[in-house]
Amino acid sequence: MDQQAKKTVLRAITYGLYAVSAEHDGERGIFTANWLSQASFVPPLVMVSVERDSSTLPLIRASGLFVVSPLLDGQKDLAGALGRPKARAGDKFATLDLAVVETASGQPALADAVGYLVCRVESETSAGDSVVIIGEVIEAAILQEGAPLEMRVAGFRHAG
Amino acid sequence: MDQQAKKTVLRAITYGLYAVSAEHDGERGIFTANWLSQASFVPPLVMVSVERDSSTLPLIRASGLFVVSPLLDGQKDLAGALGRPKARAGDKFATLDLAVVETASGQPALADAVGYLVCRVESETSAGDSVVIIGEVIEAAILQEGAPLEMRVAGFRHAG
Repeated sequence: MDQQAKKTVLRAITYGLYAVSAEHDGERGIFTANWLSQASFVPPLVMVSVERDSSTLPLIRASGLFVVSPLLDGQKDLAGALGRPKARAGDKFATLDLAVVETASGQPALADAVGYLVCRVESETSAGDSVVIIGEVIEAAILQEGAPLEMRVAGFRHAG
Repeated sequence: MDQQAKKTVLRAITYGLYAVSAEHDGERGIFTANWLSQASFVPPLVMVSVERDSSTLPLIRASGLFVVSPLLDGQKDLAGALGRPKARAGDKFATLDLAVVETASGQPALADAVGYLVCRVESETSAGDSVVIIGEVIEAAILQEGAPLEMRVAGFRHAG
């Protein structure tokens, strides 16, 4: 396979940037995702690829829930900060002093975002170095006016 | 659930527009996808949500292969035309007089696109009105210079 072509064409896929968060038993996790898409209209499903070594993944599995918060144009620095692993960054809710909205299902959602979708895990599929989680949207709220943050505009390159 | 919030936040997800094609036993199918993302670096995997009633889905299942071609900025009309169901549009390769590149694995790829990724199906997961296909990239080629077509720029709204 032409490795350069593989990289170039994979980088032609268009992404946004999202905070994905989950809480279980008082432990909270949050990370930046871009490999995320709607997967169904009826019922409304979202799919997200999560790295196997994500510290939030066990919280998603244990709670059976995750929250998707589309970041706002201008939140590039936050997207970068949320992308740091917990092992180095600690509890990012605390260290980044994140304003949080508690959802009806008790999950933590970022207050500074377009809004949030609370998703209930429907399936998990092995996908190489990651797992693909498909979840049904069970709660939704609009929080802030503004355009979503696009990965190409942010200059990030998490693809290829 | 707040249905309007669900729609609004789901529409804050950022997408590109892609031609997805497959051929089996001389029958070809091609459609426009936006619910598509990389899913793993190692091995390189792509995930795509395909409607259950897609006429290309049986060809993907039978061949075990599909081709992803990121459309180019300016190909909005083509994205619209490829989105029409085969039942109404017929064999879109013929009716739209599409220029095709045959990949090493014998699959049809759109010649007018950023390039193509040939993916070998690794798994299929039920996802409401759709199925999520995860495939490993086994071939890749760059075909045209140019920026990818973004769904928000195209003005399409296949989300919510």
